[in-house]
Amino acid sequence: MWYTNTGKNGDIVLSSRVRLARNIKDIPFAGKMTEKDELTVLEKLKPVAEKNGLNFFSLKDFPLYEKQALAEQHIISPDMLDNSRHRGLIISPDNRTSIMLCEEDHIRIQCMQEGFDLEECLKNAVEIDNLIEEEIDYEFHQDLGYLTCCPSNLGTGMRASVMVHLPAHTKTGKINSVIRNFSQVGLTVRGLYGEGSKALGNIYQVSNQVTLGITEEEIIEKLTGFITELTENERKLQKELYDREKFVLEDKIMRSYGTLKNAVILSSSETLNLISDMRMGINLGIIKDITLGTLNEIFYAVLPANIIKKYNLESSAERDLKRAEIIKEKLK
Amino acid sequence: MWYTNTGKNGDIVLSSRVRLARNIKDIPFAGKMTEKDELTVLEKLKPVAEKNGLNFFSLKDFPLYEKQALAEQHIISPDMLDNSRHRGLIISPDNRTSIMLCEEDHIRIQCMQEGFDLEECLKNAVEIDNLIEEEIDYEFHQDLGYLTCCPSNLGTGMRASVMVHLPAHTKTGKINSVIRNFSQVGLTVRGLYGEGSKALGNIYQVSNQVTLGITEEEIIEKLTGFITELTENERKLQKELYDREKFVLEDKIMRSYGTLKNAVILSSSETLNLISDMRMGINLGIIKDITLGTLNEIFYAVLPANIIKKYNLESSAERDLKRAEIIKEKLK
Repeated sequence: MWYTNTGKNGDIVLSSRVRLARNIKDIPFAGKMTEKDELTVLEKLKPVAEKNGLNFFSLKDFPLYEKQALAEQHIISPDMLDNSRHRGLIISPDNRTSIMLCEEDHIRIQCMQEGFDLEECLKNAVEIDNLIEEEIDYEFHQDLGYLTCCPSNLGTGMRASVMVHLPAHTKTGKINSVIRNFSQVGLTVRGLYGEGSKALGNIYQVSNQVTLGITEEEIIEKLTGFITELTENERKLQKELYDREKFVLEDKIMRSYGTLKNAVILSSSETLNLISDMRMGINLGIIKDITLGTLNEIFYAVLPANIIKKYNLESSAERDLKRAEIIKEKLK
Repeated sequence: MWYTNTGKNGDIVLSSRVRLARNIKDIPFAGKMTEKDELTVLEKLKPVAEKNGLNFFSLKDFPLYEKQALAEQHIISPDMLDNSRHRGLIISPDNRTSIMLCEEDHIRIQCMQEGFDLEECLKNAVEIDNLIEEEIDYEFHQDLGYLTCCPSNLGTGMRASVMVHLPAHTKTGKINSVIRNFSQVGLTVRGLYGEGSKALGNIYQVSNQVTLGITEEEIIEKLTGFITELTENERKLQKELYDREKFVLEDKIMRSYGTLKNAVILSSSETLNLISDMRMGINLGIIKDITLGTLNEIFYAVLPANIIKKYNLESSAERDLKRAEIIKEKLK
């Protein structure tokens, strides 16, 4: 899968994502939609998907754990787990592009790339957007731009975000001033799984807050500037940490490596923290026999729903054993 | 060195030791000895040592860390570190037999064996005792037996002890009733480095308290009975622990293994605890690629004074780095 690749600035930036919110003309917005309206959205998009070589799924038919696995990989949002509405998912064969149907908005196009590459994400999202617009009329207002269910998405309807690994910012507490400063320029910093979630494994999502009165390109340019600086600072802080307490850091990182390779029981959150240490260890040249690609592979392979899906293990105790087994195998 | 061997019942019993306390006729006991008396003791024993192929040392000339290393290996007692008196050490080339001069008593003969073998220790100690007695008259009382500085050693002057590894007794708290019960039958249970020391690495010393009104053979027979039972119980408890929580125990043991193999900084006490887990892991068949012999080797190689002596590292931070390095090498 693409997300196991190491992209641009892949030492710090895990992945980039652009999401466009769109609604179909003359169909009520979420909250006012009937079941029939939901089905209409799905029916309208199904042929667009098929025409363009994308896979279409109605999520009513999907087992919960399959949807959880998709949510863990950020292919769908957690909202889509709720089965009380008819939801649809269109997805490209390589999983880089997905379209959520009847999420908060009728249509949410999402394009992802490994590493730091918002331009490519935007390019792909706009391409899909144009393909859909050839067949379907969007709700669009001359002054306000694309109309969305939540006013915070009005205008471009675009949210661009990057997933960054910031262990040194976290360890030194500097992440707090980053969160403050970014919020003052209209950028949001959140934990791994969106709002309110803790920064598991020192991974943060940075995204734009403002969508109105600014072009898509301007949003991405701004985000790119801040993320570039953040990435450079994180690298500098990691090196400083290493210079300041070389052996203490090596010890912590190598113990994490030893635990990942030898533990028999590994919870998901412990694993994310151990992987965080490993990632820093690879960046600093402390760990030489494992690549970032292998870490990325492990990162996704051991997410809970992914293990449920693949091994049919419902109990968390069984999953913790299987997780340790998978990791041992991958680190061999 | 002999102590890296695995002897009888070597899964639980690390080593056995017999110590005989003797004093020379017509020389005042410790506390009343002059410097000249101390030198006399040393002078009287030196030719006995030389005649029998044993090495003689005056400890006044010894660097402190050399003596600390000997104390760590139980070849001399910690009392011998004090340089305010003239002390002597006679030692066999294989280190199994040592004679401390001007410790609490004029002469303390000590014989050690790997594993559980008090008979062999006694046999060797008696042999040395006879060799000395050929040349030197002991203080001996018709009714009381050998006279010693402390009345607790009167009679046989013998203390027999075994060093046992009791992780399951410790974990289950059963060690407390063992300590109580043993004390009721005149046996003392202490931590690794004698009275008052904590049971570092779950290692305990069990020895006889009573020396009077009982023969050497009776002491050893009694100790042998209790240690045999203790050893069997420990094996049973280890298996029960494993049966009860297989994966939790495997996880703990394998994490300890991973830490020993990968850590960059290892303190002495952490190492002893990790080795304790490894030892249990080997006993239970969880760890298959490391032998008890290798563990015994590590156990002695990484004691603080031994590292100071070998690598001339005075700071504990440097020793903790070197310790981790030695262990990594031995576990390769």
